[in-house]
Formats: sequence, structure tokens, C-alpha cells
Amino acid sequence: MSWTVRDSSFDKARIITNGNKYMTGNGYMGYRGTLEEFGRDQLAAVTLAGVYDQAGERWREPVNAPNGLYTALVCNGQRLSVLETEPLDHKQELDIRSAVHRRETVYRIPEGGELIYTAERFASMAELHVLASRQTVKCTADCRITIETGIDSEVWDINGPHLQDKQEMFKNGVLLASAVTGELQLPVAVAELSVFGFGGLKLSKAGALRRVTFDAKAGEIYEWFKYAAVYTGLDMEGAPEELAEQAVQAAAEKGYRELLQAHRRVWEERWSRCDCLIEGDAAAQLALRYSMYQLMIIAPTASEKVSIPARGLSGQVYKGAVFWDTEMFMLPFFLHSDPGVARNLMMYRIHTLDGARRKAAEYGYLGAFYAWESQDSGDDACTLFNVNDVFTGRPMRTYFRDEQVHISADVVHGIWQYIQFTGDDSLLLDGGAGVIWECARFFYSYAYYNPVKERYEILDVTGPDEYHERVNNNAFTNALVKETLEIALSCAELLESRYPESYRELHRQFTGGPFLTEFRTLLEGLYLPRPDPDTLLIEQFDRYFQLEEVTLPELRSRVINKNEYWGGGNGLATTTRILKQADVVLMLHLFKSAFTKEVKQANWEFYEPRTEHGSSLSACIYALVAAEIGSPDWGYPYFMRTATVDLTGESKQYVGDLYIGGTHPAANGGAWMAAVLGFAGVQFDGATVCLKPALPKHWQSVELPVTLRGGQYSLRVTRDEIVITAAAGNREALAFAGFGSPAELCGPGAELRLRLAEPAAAEN
Amino acid sequence: MSWTVRDSSFDKARIITNGNKYMTGNGYMGYRGTLEEFGRDQLAAVTLAGVYDQAGERWREPVNAPNGLYTALVCNGQRLSVLETEPLDHKQELDIRSAVHRRETVYRIPEGGELIYTAERFASMAELHVLASRQTVKCTADCRITIETGIDSEVWDINGPHLQDKQEMFKNGVLLASAVTGELQLPVAVAELSVFGFGGLKLSKAGALRRVTFDAKAGEIYEWFKYAAVYTGLDMEGAPEELAEQAVQAAAEKGYRELLQAHRRVWEERWSRCDCLIEGDAAAQLALRYSMYQLMIIAPTASEKVSIPARGLSGQVYKGAVFWDTEMFMLPFFLHSDPGVARNLMMYRIHTLDGARRKAAEYGYLGAFYAWESQDSGDDACTLFNVNDVFTGRPMRTYFRDEQVHISADVVHGIWQYIQFTGDDSLLLDGGAGVIWECARFFYSYAYYNPVKERYEILDVTGPDEYHERVNNNAFTNALVKETLEIALSCAELLESRYPESYRELHRQFTGGPFLTEFRTLLEGLYLPRPDPDTLLIEQFDRYFQLEEVTLPELRSRVINKNEYWGGGNGLATTTRILKQADVVLMLHLFKSAFTKEVKQANWEFYEPRTEHGSSLSACIYALVAAEIGSPDWGYPYFMRTATVDLTGESKQYVGDLYIGGTHPAANGGAWMAAVLGFAGVQFDGATVCLKPALPKHWQSVELPVTLRGGQYSLRVTRDEIVITAAAGNREALAFAGFGSPAELCGPGAELRLRLAEPAAAEN
Repeated sequence: MSWTVRDSSFDKARIITNGNKYMTGNGYMGYRGTLEEFGRDQLAAVTLAGVYDQAGERWREPVNAPNGLYTALVCNGQRLSVLETEPLDHKQELDIRSAVHRRETVYRIPEGGELIYTAERFASMAELHVLASRQTVKCTADCRITIETGIDSEVWDINGPHLQDKQEMFKNGVLLASAVTGELQLPVAVAELSVFGFGGLKLSKAGALRRVTFDAKAGEIYEWFKYAAVYTGLDMEGAPEELAEQAVQAAAEKGYRELLQAHRRVWEERWSRCDCLIEGDAAAQLALRYSMYQLMIIAPTASEKVSIPARGLSGQVYKGAVFWDTEMFMLPFFLHSDPGVARNLMMYRIHTLDGARRKAAEYGYLGAFYAWESQDSGDDACTLFNVNDVFTGRPMRTYFRDEQVHISADVVHGIWQYIQFTGDDSLLLDGGAGVIWECARFFYSYAYYNPVKERYEILDVTGPDEYHERVNNNAFTNALVKETLEIALSCAELLESRYPESYRELHRQFTGGPFLTEFRTLLEGLYLPRPDPDTLLIEQFDRYFQLEEVTLPELRSRVINKNEYWGGGNGLATTTRILKQADVVLMLHLFKSAFTKEVKQANWEFYEPRTEHGSSLSACIYALVAAEIGSPDWGYPYFMRTATVDLTGESKQYVGDLYIGGTHPAANGGAWMAAVLGFAGVQFDGATVCLKPALPKHWQSVELPVTLRGGQYSLRVTRDEIVITAAAGNREALAFAGFGSPAELCGPGAELRLRLAEPAAAEN
Repeated sequence: MSWTVRDSSFDKARIITNGNKYMTGNGYMGYRGTLEEFGRDQLAAVTLAGVYDQAGERWREPVNAPNGLYTALVCNGQRLSVLETEPLDHKQELDIRSAVHRRETVYRIPEGGELIYTAERFASMAELHVLASRQTVKCTADCRITIETGIDSEVWDINGPHLQDKQEMFKNGVLLASAVTGELQLPVAVAELSVFGFGGLKLSKAGALRRVTFDAKAGEIYEWFKYAAVYTGLDMEGAPEELAEQAVQAAAEKGYRELLQAHRRVWEERWSRCDCLIEGDAAAQLALRYSMYQLMIIAPTASEKVSIPARGLSGQVYKGAVFWDTEMFMLPFFLHSDPGVARNLMMYRIHTLDGARRKAAEYGYLGAFYAWESQDSGDDACTLFNVNDVFTGRPMRTYFRDEQVHISADVVHGIWQYIQFTGDDSLLLDGGAGVIWECARFFYSYAYYNPVKERYEILDVTGPDEYHERVNNNAFTNALVKETLEIALSCAELLESRYPESYRELHRQFTGGPFLTEFRTLLEGLYLPRPDPDTLLIEQFDRYFQLEEVTLPELRSRVINKNEYWGGGNGLATTTRILKQADVVLMLHLFKSAFTKEVKQANWEFYEPRTEHGSSLSACIYALVAAEIGSPDWGYPYFMRTATVDLTGESKQYVGDLYIGGTHPAANGGAWMAAVLGFAGVQFDGATVCLKPALPKHWQSVELPVTLRGGQYSLRVTRDEIVITAAAGNREALAFAGFGSPAELCGPGAELRLRLAEPAAAEN
């Protein structure tokens, strides 16, 4: 029950949101949750991770591969498709435990009787290039059936077309569709092989589709299997066409059941590292699992050259670009459950350092200014005009690209979190140290000294609250710059003490510019907006408190066009205190140990009613910090809103006239953060796991496995007791503290019980 | 001929622009060039200098007084007014030599025959509170005439009403209208006395109007006189009502002709100090005189508490506020012709220093940040939302108020120019030094140090080109900040050497904050955008060259609504290289000695086609600098455009949905600058008058008087000869140089002839 997502009828209006809801994928590709007969108009897509193309002057975006699982049915000469025929019954479901998608549709046969069509499919987690499907028909009256199946090369593109020189071939029973991308001339090949479990077939071909006709007998089940494989020029093993062909042949040899079994085994292993049990809340249980599922189907398990885009692999929205979402909202999940993926995500930033260096240089800064929208090269895909004005139709100048400088700090934060959580400091030697220092150097060149106030300031930035662009001393950004500088210094210390030779080598590369001395100067003089002594409020940025005080309903009542952008030069929110998303409150989460509970509470209460949550990255942070201040029930609705965003499909679909639909991996990661870091209160600082449970009132317990510094632990958290079990195979002990007690070590194979001394409110 | 402006027919469409074109005034009040029977709907207005009021939350603006010259005619029961009756003939003219307005209108008498109505009026330059008018009727057939005359209390207001507790009285033959302003409760009183030069009158009264009826005989001329006087609570001599009543009684006793004579005498004297003769260009001659006329009717000759608003005294547009226009565009005229007015203008800034201090403090800066829109107190009348978005009707956030920091430098520039031109350094002791130092202190607190580039920068400003707000290192602004710092240091040196005691006293007041040491530090480290070594171009601000390159016609073709604002967050010009007005080129004019002719020419040629001239302050600067680079004929069209702006009425009337019509004193001053400082090439640096004639091709000579450092000189400039004649009464000699020759002294009563060595092109 808590593993299945299901729709029991067909609703045309939900075709696009169901495409997101029923996503499958394996990190190499995403397969939208469309039905077998769907094409480009229904946004069917096989989105490839890390393969980008620019068509003409349009936005650069990921490439969608031809769809090797396309299948349509014709019965007695009439096309059977939910798009054309009202089905008698229809069911679409996703088994998130093993990432298998199923549909079952019952059609009326025109001449009488019914036809039951089922299709099951998965993107293999064991063979990342392979898609497999098992399909059946059964009818209650004899009829003639044609199965039109093969490869649909008419791919959906937002800013396409990306595939040129398309060729289709039929070779040894295998259909082959190949093309090259326009910009980088990357070959893309899809192979398909259909295996029919019954005879009496008449076969004809049309392009990359075959038509298989047979006379079906009432009551019989006709079963067939489809194997598709996708390779591109980025896969270095050989020629994509040959690899794809070999892959489908090999898949067919193994057979569907064996492929599925191997796929299931991988998923079982994945879940064993992260599945989180919530006692007392079935809805939250499903939503949380679903959030983890969405993260796992897009996680790069096999490549350190790609990261996770803001809309995952659900299409080309947001240019398939990687934002700060990855480090700040998704990384924590992987840090606790799959350090290998976490490492790949951070290696992606290391591989794209040159792009970040180019961007810094472009703006006249030193070091590395990471792309706001990062693709394969690390050059910024973000344009200076990222939203259209709905009133004039004109592109609107936005400052996402120029001024969200916190991105460089977010990358550093992610790398350092990785080091803290895994203890794997090899990442620093593999390029991490360079990234950290180049980012610190960037901030040194970005900072200005105010001679009257005798402090360094970070001017002209956009913080997380994008409705207020071009602000000075954004509290969030300044705090992250400070952290970057601290990390830059700590990194040098760590390397010097553990890897003195490598350190000397690296140090030499950095002597020609601002380095540790300058970082120290900036760190010591950096201005950090602090809580007001009376109100305890931290001002989001200089003069934020001078902005118009207006309620959200009042501001909404001023809306003229429902898609109008609230930020930018003339946006409705721009001159008010209304924020798009958690900003100061996110900072309080990140640096929780630097602020008292009173400060957190005062700022939560101040900013919460002023937050529009125009980003799916917002609600989870309010949930997290609500738990942190001991008010999980304030946070619970925010948690649920975050955890169900891709289930309900209730998210913004447009900004200006720009389509922004798709899945929401940052919200998926945020839901996990709220549940585990917030409600279960798992807080690891690299040395001690502090457990501060703050369970919503109807939750009895949370139980989950975590992987920390290479050790496996199982945690069970209730209101008054925490049980920690360390795997026998762990190599060392780890310190745990709970309910404010002193830390205790938990060695390999040991069990630790921490109990609430007296039933009082959770302490901060 | 070259002294008269005339319309020979009546055109309803020109009522408003003619109200500007036919302005009279005397610095105490402006009287719009409306006809006698006009009222608020025709924008009749008596705008009072320095009297401001705010009604409710609307914009604070000057107070218009009731119109004491209102007169309407009724003939045989029918109203005679150009608004209601098509006149047989109509003439409106302005004699700018003596500032007398005349109209003559011929109406058809309904029962047959014609009636000729004439009215002459002036705002007395001898008695600043007095308006006087002589009117006549003459008819070709007997008829019954009613003259409705008195005070029209229905004043035109943009953001009114401003007059409360209105009272009307008839006392000793004098009509009296009085009221108080809403905000400051200032009394405003207008008295009126009509004297009829004929008998047989029947009199009735209605409010502050009287109806005088008589039977007119064909061929007779019926003449009457009107005297009106205006006083307010700001006039410290006594109660406004009594003063006004006494003033009209006294005026009537003197009689119209004597009043007119006294008025003419003052005007004669004024013209003797400035009239500039252009040989070879009658159109330019009239336009230049007209420009000087417009400046003289609004110049504060009797008060150092008011300055000249951006729309002069032609109404309430731009809140009747004083902008940088005064120092940068009008002051030069007065510095060369009327140092007393120049001193008053600068004293106004000294009196409003506290307002500037308050504004600096409001934004967290030190020193004095002068108001972008300054009224009586020096507090900023500029709002944060100064333009409405025509597409949404919403107020648009603009940064005029926050970021046009050059205003403080402009004030300092003006004060120092005054000292240079007059030698009257008493102004420094009267508060000028305090203004200079407070402005320098403001910039010290505004500047930031860039530790990588090792320089101070001026960030986040708006320069003269208001289409580009929030820019860094605007070349114009940085150059003016530098000048401010230099002046601050020079001022200290000057005072220390000449007034050591006063200096010690002043110095003591400034020790508690950044002062000379800090000014020197900033001056030495300040970044000034310099000409590119290859292109010679000076970048208007950081990253200006990265903006979209687009032609003006192309940009115009993108306009959707003709009143849309081109600047602001989403303006058409904002993201392009198109500028509103001279910015770099204005800087080249101000600091001409710091740049080679090649640099000036390269920048003129680059920026000129990219300038929209959306401000009336723009064209004159291109004329000036064209002359400076020896291409006066490039500049001539810009000069004429500037000099005729109030004659043709061809200027922007709307920005967004904001009415901005009125006179253009900055353009008037700019026209004078282009002719005298540009074409005649009169360039005084406080020590030597450098004469660099660059006459347009059809100009034979320019001849004008100037007053410099207390001495009177007459200059006659031709292409190859300059003749300087010093008044016999001068106290000292002054150095003159021309055609690049070494300077020669010209003592009292002497004549100096400078000749072009050989007929070559004018040198830079």
C-alpha cells in the first residue's frame, strides 16, 4: 500500500502532470510517466542525463532520445488509444519499491466484446542503457489485432530540434534509430527489439515502426516483450549504434524476467540504505518514500560528469540545468544514504570548475563563479532575460545569472559536507580543494571594504528570495561567504596536516593571487547581519525593513495576470517585504548552532507569513526550522506540501509565459530533510550525531538506516527514546547524543539507547 | 523684431504650450501666458516661488495663488471669449525686452459690428508683489458691455487643493482673496484694484469678481487698469492681507505708466548685463534672447531662500522642485551676468543643508546627500515611485531619489564655480565651506574600497542618463566625486590662508568624523574610468559596453505605448546602449582641460547617435562639446533645438502617465551655454578667460557683456579677432587669452584685441 501510486481512471487533463508523477528512470535517462501510445504532444520523453544541445539561438537544453517503447494497438481496423477512445476501465500505477510502471486499459471492441491491454515497463537500474517492457492483450471476443510498435523518433522538444540526420534501420530483427545532435555533433542511437510470445504474425514496416497483425482468440492472453537501449557519443565504450544493438540483443537473451529481477535487486539494495518508516502516518509514509524514489531514479550512480537538474530527468524544463538545488536540497539525502552518488555530484562541480572560472573572468572577478544554471561544461546556461513580461511580451532583465553569487558558496558547502559526512578527504585532492579556494578567491574579489563602517560587505547580490534582486548584504549570502572562507582555511589546514606534499604542490598553484592571508582578512572583517537585540529579527538584506509592509492576500489581490512574475524590476513583490522563499530562515537552518532558539523562532514567525513559497524549495525549510524550534506541528503542513508536490501536480506551471512544469527533486530532497533532519532530528556535524526528535503529534516513531563516515547505523526515534544500532561490519565507532545528553560512542555491532531524562519539551 | 514672440491666430490646441511660451514673471511669482478670460481648465496660474504645500498624501508642490488679473467680457449679453467664440482676429505677443505680454482680440458683435479687446500686462520687476494690466475695448457699433473682473480663486492644482479657509472681501474698492495653505498654514493673500478711465458704470459683485456694465459708443476707446498684489506668510514684512491691500493702493496711486516705466528700467539694466548679439542669424538671435528672458523671469533676485525649479515658475510640474538643473545648466548664465542671483541660488543650498544631512542619515551615510527634488526645507520631494507603468497602471520603482548622488557634487561644483567667477569667498564663510565638506564626507561614506583592484569605487548610482539606474562607476559621477574632494581640500587651503581664525573654528566642527585626511585618501585611491587606449572611448559605467547595441530607430520601433517610460526595471532602453541624455559627454564638457580633443571627438561621435535626448538637458551639451572639438556645425542643430524648446512647445509632455509640461529653464541655460561657452568659446577658469571661438558657419560674430570677478567686460568675437573692452570702473585687471595665444591682462578701461595668427582651423 505504501509503495504504490495509482490512478484508477483516465483524465486527459492530467496527461502532463501524470507524466511527472509516474516518472521512471535510472540516472542515465528519465522516462516520463506517459502511456505506450503517447507521443510528443503528450510530452512523451526519454530525457538523457548530461547530453545537451543548442538549436540556433534558442535555449540550450537536454536532448530527448527517440522513444523505443512506443506501442499502439489497432483492433478490427480501429485504433485503440485513450486519446481517441473512452476506455471502459483504466488503471495506471507505479510500484516505487521496484520502480516498475504499469498500465491496464480495457477497451470496447467495436464489434462487441472487450480488449484488455496491459503494459509494464522499467528503466533498468542494473543495465542503465536498457528499457524493458512486457505487454499483453486479451479479448473477450475474437478479433484482428495490429500492434504498431518500435521507435517513435518524433521527440518532444521545447527548444529543438536537436536531432539531425535521423536514420532508421531494420537489422537482424532489431530496429535502429540514429541521429546526431546539432551543436556538438554527438551521435545518439536507440535500438529496439520486440519478442512476441505467440505465432501467426503478419509483419510490415514503416520507418522505425513495425506492424504486427494477428487474429486473436477470445480468452487467450497474447504476450510480448520489448527491449530498448540508448547510447550516445558520451558513452565511451564504442559506437553508439553498435552498443545499442548489442544491448538489446543481450537483453532479449537474458529475457524480461531476469532483467526485471536484476533491476529489483538493485532497488532492494537502494531502499535498504534509506527506507524511512513512519509509524502513525500512512500518507506521510507514502509521500516520503515517493520523494526518495524520485531522487533515486535521477541520481547519477555511474557518472561523475553529470549532476541532478532542477527538474530531474522529467524533460527539458529549466534547460535541464543543475542549480544550487542539488547541493542544498538533494545532497543531504545522498550524504546519509548513498555517499557514492554524493561523490559523483560533487565531482561534477570539480569537472565544471573551468566553466566557473570563465564566468568569474567574464564578470571581471577572480576565482570561480559557478553557473546559476549549469550544464555539461559548467558555462552558465542562464540568460540575462530569463522571464518574459506578460504585459508586453518582452523579455525581462533578471539577475539570476549575474548575482546569485551564493551558488559558489553552495558548491563549497556541498563539498565540505561531503568531507564531513564521509571522511573521504580524497575528494579534496581530486580537485575539491581547488574548487574551494577558487570560490573563496571569487568572494574575495567580490567583496568591498566600507571604510566608514570598517568592514567588508557583499554588495549587489540576489539571495534565495529571488523577488528581491540586487540587494546588499543579504544575510544568507554573507553567512555562506563566511562559511566558504572558513572552509577554505580549514581545507588548507586539513591538507597540510594529512597530505603535506600534495598541499605544497597545490599551494604553489595558488600563490599568484589572493589566498589564505587574504581569506583570513576578509573573514575577520566580513559583515554579518545579526539579530536585532530587541526584536531578535535578522534583516534579510540592507533596508529590507524599509520595504512596504503588505499581507500576502493583499498582494495577491493586486495581481492583474495570473502568470505575471512577482520579481524583477517592476514585480508586485519587489518593493514589498513579501518573499519568494525561505531566505533568512534557510540561513538559520544551515547555521543552526550559531543562533538561539529564540532567534530562530522570532524569525520564523516574522518571515513565515511574508513568504509566498513561489519556489518548491521553500516549504520544506519552514518545516525543518519549525521542528528545530520544537514546533513540528507548525511544520507538518509544509512538510506534506513538499512531499506531495509531484503526487498532486499542484505546483506553479508558468512564470511569465515560461512553462516550468516537471518533477521537483529539490522538494523531494526537502521532504526527506524535513522528516529526517527535522522531525527525527538527525543532525550530524562530522563528529557527533545529535538527535533532537520533534515528531508531529500523530507520529509515533521514525526508523531509518543511515551511512555516516563509512559506517551503517539503524536509528529508531520516538518521543522519549532513541535506539541506535551499529552494523557489525563498521570499522569504527561514532559518537551519538540525544535529548541533550553528552555524546556516547557506538562501536561496531553495538546498540545504544538514549532516553529522555524527564518528559519535558524538546530542548534547543 | 528680435525682441518679440507672437502668435497671429488663436489655436485651442496651443492653449497649454502657449501658457509656457508667453510666461511672464519676476522671480517672486510666475504668471502663465494664458489669456485674461482663462481659468483653471486652461492652466491659468500664478505660481509662487518657494511656497509649497502637501494635500493629503499627494505630492507636495508649489502653491498657485488666486489670479488677480482675471477678466472676461460680455457684449450685449453674450460672453466674448476665445474659448466660446471664434474671434475675427487674434494676436498674442510677448515683448521680451521689457517682459510685457499683450493680446488683441477682435470679436464680432452679435447684432453687427466688431469689438476690439486689448490687454497688456506685466509682473513688475520693480515691485515684485505686483501684477499690472492695461485693457481696452473699442467697438464699431454701439453696444452694452459688461466687464467681469477681479480675482479668480479657482486655482489650477495638480495635487491640490492647497488653499483652505478661502475668504473674499471687498474693502475700500479693493478686492481681497485670502486663504491659508493646508500643511504649513501659511496665509496667502491677493488684492486687486481696478481703475476705470471712463464713467457711466453700473457695478455689481459676485464673490471676488465685480461686474461693470456700461453702454459703449462706436469708435470710442474704453480703457481701464488692473493692479493685483500677492503676499504670503513667507513675506516677513507684515500681515499678507494688509500688505497686499497697501500694495495695490500704492500701485494705483503711482499709476500704470509709472509702474511700467520702473519695470522697464529694471529690465533695461538686466539686458545691459547679458544681451548677446549674434550677427548673421536672426532666428538664433531671438531664440537666445528668449532663453535668457525665460531665465530672468524666474531668477530669485530678492531671496536667498529659493532657487529655480526645473519647470521654472510655469506651474506645479515636477513638484516645483529644484534639481541639479540649477547648478549645472542655469548657474553659468548668472555667473557671467548676475552674480547676485548666482549667490542667492547657492545660498539656497546652504539654507537647505540640514535637509541634505537628514537625507544622508536616512540612508545611513555621513554628511550631506542633497535632495534630488528640493523644495523649501531641502528634504527630498522625490518619491521612490516617480513614474507610473503605462501597461499596468502601477507605480514603478525608480532610483532618482536614492542614487543620483551626483547632486551633492553638483552643489559643490556650483559653489566653487561661484567662488571662481566672483572671487567672493565670503560665501564659504556664510556656510559654503560646510556644504562642501559635508558633501565630501557624504561621498567618503558612499565609497567602497575594492581590495583586489586596490581602488575606491562609487557603486550603485544613477548618472545623468537616468535610463540606466543602479550602475557602478559612472564616469560622470566618479569625476564629480573627485572634483568634490579636490574642492574640499582647496576650500580648506583657501580658508586657512585667508581666514585662519574662521578656519580654525570651522575645522573644530568637523573633527568628529572623516575630514581632510580621509578626503585625501579617497581622492588618491578613487577610480576614474579612463579613455580606452585604442578606441579613446570612456565607458559610461561598468559593463555599459556589454549592453545591447541597437539603433534609436530600431528601439523606437519596439515602443508599444508612446508614453511608456524607457528606463526603470523593464524599460526599453534599460538593457541597451541607448542613453537618455549626455552623460560621458557632459563630463567631457565639465572637465574639458583633462581630455584631448581626440578623446572628446571619439566620445561625441560614439555617444551622439546613441542619445535619445529624452531630457531637455541633453542637446545643449552636444552643441557645447561639438563647438569644443571645432565642429560647431554639428552642434548648431542641437543648439537651436535647445533654444527653441519653449517657443515651439515640442518637448515631451508625458512620462508614463505623468504630465511633465512647462518651461525648460535648464534648456534655456543650456542654449546660453552653447552659444556663449560653446560657439563664442568663452571659458573662464577663475584666473584666465580663454576664448576659443567656434562659430557656426553663418554666424559672423557674437558680442556680449560679461561680469567676471566683479569687473565688467564687453566681448566681441569673430572667427579671426576677439575684442575685449574692460569697463573703466573695474577695480582690477583680468587675464584673457585667445586663439591659443599666451594670456594678456586687460586693465580697467582698456581694450584688448586678440587676433588669429594665421587663418587655420580653431585649435583645441
